Amino acid sequence: MAQPPGELPYTPELRKDVITREWVIVARGRSRRPSDLQQGEPPSPCPFCPGQESASETLYQIPDGPTGWKVRVVRNKFPALIWQKEVVTIERGIYDIVSGNGSHEVVIESPQHDPDIWQLPPEQVEAVLETYRRRIITLQRDTRLRYILVFRNHGLGAGTSLAHPHSQIIATPVVPHYIEQEMEGIKHYWEYIERCPYCAIIAQELETGERLVLENERFVGITAFAGRFPYEMWLIPKRHQAHFHATTDAARADCAAALREMLGRLAGALHFPSYNYALHTGLAGDGSDAAFHWHLEIFPRVGTAGGFELGSDLYINSTTPEDAAQALRTAPIPM
Amino acid sequence: MAQPPGELPYTPELRKDVITREWVIVARGRSRRPSDLQQGEPPSPCPFCPGQESASETLYQIPDGPTGWKVRVVRNKFPALIWQKEVVTIERGIYDIVSGNGSHEVVIESPQHDPDIWQLPPEQVEAVLETYRRRIITLQRDTRLRYILVFRNHGLGAGTSLAHPHSQIIATPVVPHYIEQEMEGIKHYWEYIERCPYCAIIAQELETGERLVLENERFVGITAFAGRFPYEMWLIPKRHQAHFHATTDAARADCAAALREMLGRLAGALHFPSYNYALHTGLAGDGSDAAFHWHLEIFPRVGTAGGFELGSDLYINSTTPEDAAQALRTAPIPM
Repeated sequence: MAQPPGELPYTPELRKDVITREWVIVARGRSRRPSDLQQGEPPSPCPFCPGQESASETLYQIPDGPTGWKVRVVRNKFPALIWQKEVVTIERGIYDIVSGNGSHEVVIESPQHDPDIWQLPPEQVEAVLETYRRRIITLQRDTRLRYILVFRNHGLGAGTSLAHPHSQIIATPVVPHYIEQEMEGIKHYWEYIERCPYCAIIAQELETGERLVLENERFVGITAFAGRFPYEMWLIPKRHQAHFHATTDAARADCAAALREMLGRLAGALHFPSYNYALHTGLAGDGSDAAFHWHLEIFPRVGTAGGFELGSDLYINSTTPEDAAQALRTAPIPM
Repeated sequence: MAQPPGELPYTPELRKDVITREWVIVARGRSRRPSDLQQGEPPSPCPFCPGQESASETLYQIPDGPTGWKVRVVRNKFPALIWQKEVVTIERGIYDIVSGNGSHEVVIESPQHDPDIWQLPPEQVEAVLETYRRRIITLQRDTRLRYILVFRNHGLGAGTSLAHPHSQIIATPVVPHYIEQEMEGIKHYWEYIERCPYCAIIAQELETGERLVLENERFVGITAFAGRFPYEMWLIPKRHQAHFHATTDAARADCAAALREMLGRLAGALHFPSYNYALHTGLAGDGSDAAFHWHLEIFPRVGTAGGFELGSDLYINSTTPEDAAQALRTAPIPM
């Protein structure tokens, strides 16, 4: 079935839903046979540990000593998107397909296999954030890209069986729906209230303290007022800034400190849950996104979305963000 | 924290995200303590088995013999939404809250505890569909409701630990985002192509057969061309019809036969996976939704959405819908 060989000579595709007009990535290269679709065992030896460098193509690294590395970025071996020489658009009757151009990288956050990111020393987390910044700067030079998403999966419930601390970066040739929604929401807020909504959120959260998890010189950590997930947290720079890659070293140090504390408190409050995070930053390029306010969203995976959520996109959150914030503020960070 | 007692004297709330302007249900009544947030053990004895009728309030039932029942609808004991006497709207600075009005019911699909719905006899599945129809007709009389979603969770990976076959019905005071997107998509398609997109999909899928799973007199079962999930299937009536509750007995018999076969083939192809389904039907009321084409969407849960999906709303599907359709067409239905 599928496309006859030769007609579509590359693997990942972007397909557009006829009804919702949303894109989906179909990455046949990541496909496994039906019987293998369940969560697998992690590979052995760990492909991200020192000594396994030849297993993946290094795209960037922060060296550490004459032979070692502190942070390493490699090409994902099962990429969701791949650079093709040409962009092919195919019309199949009522359906549209375009080639799945883009890139998919893995940020190996430490040579150490066991610790989670928040258990790493502050300067190591700063090196990870610096690596995000470097890769975003490099990737956004390619003007065919429309978005660059840095994200992290931790734990089986968050979609990964690999314990070695790592993040991922996927660069896409379309603007993802959630980012578009945020951009439109910000524009709408500006039109009606003449203010950045994230700046308004920071002001209100600092004033009421109801959902405040932490505050340092340059960052605020809160539980989201209308979070989709229990204990959903947002980490937001106090200063209005569209692009993560424009942060200073000092800002990234504050960001790393806040991130370590938020994830540590989450581990303390919910006994080391699986979680994801995603970095939302302005689009590459022409400055039309100056209204954006970059931030990081943390999604603990303590429940499972069911048919209601998948069938409606209306989420049921069983923990109030106020209760979650109180639990997080008082949770001891595990040693 | 949260609201001081007395100020908001009811539990479920709808909160609006300031940025995306999407609603989230915060159902404190479903809240458990942080340490209890992980998936729990199923209750014992099973609250849906015969003999436990006094444990829940019966809203509707199809009697079977002098003392028994064939299908039973009860109020959910941990409702996501509850009817309140009055609708309260609260403005908290930049945030909006409205009372979580609505209802949340459970459809107990059989007195038998063990079989999944597709393993029940055809007439039993028809009785379940008839029950959906009855409840939709009853619920839509309340004009405060904006949508009625019938859905089903099967298996731990789909968000339920209750094995007894059951569906759920949540009636909401807002139109959920996904339904709004479908309505807008249909309107858009009509404006440009002057045709119902679901009717167009049926025509193309029957012509190419690439994604066809089954066809009977009144229904088509396909894998979704741009499905978000591996093996995502849509069950669509051939005849353009906005409302599920307008189906005839004969149509529901064909629908039941198709549903049994699709879920049976899924169990055969993927070794009894967890899955959800959701029924998308026209809105209650004034006929403005005549352009809608009701259908049922089936979401197998064979992978876990990660930070990329949660952070972008752009899904990566690792199995082509064409490969999935072929596997489903040839999969033996387990006995």
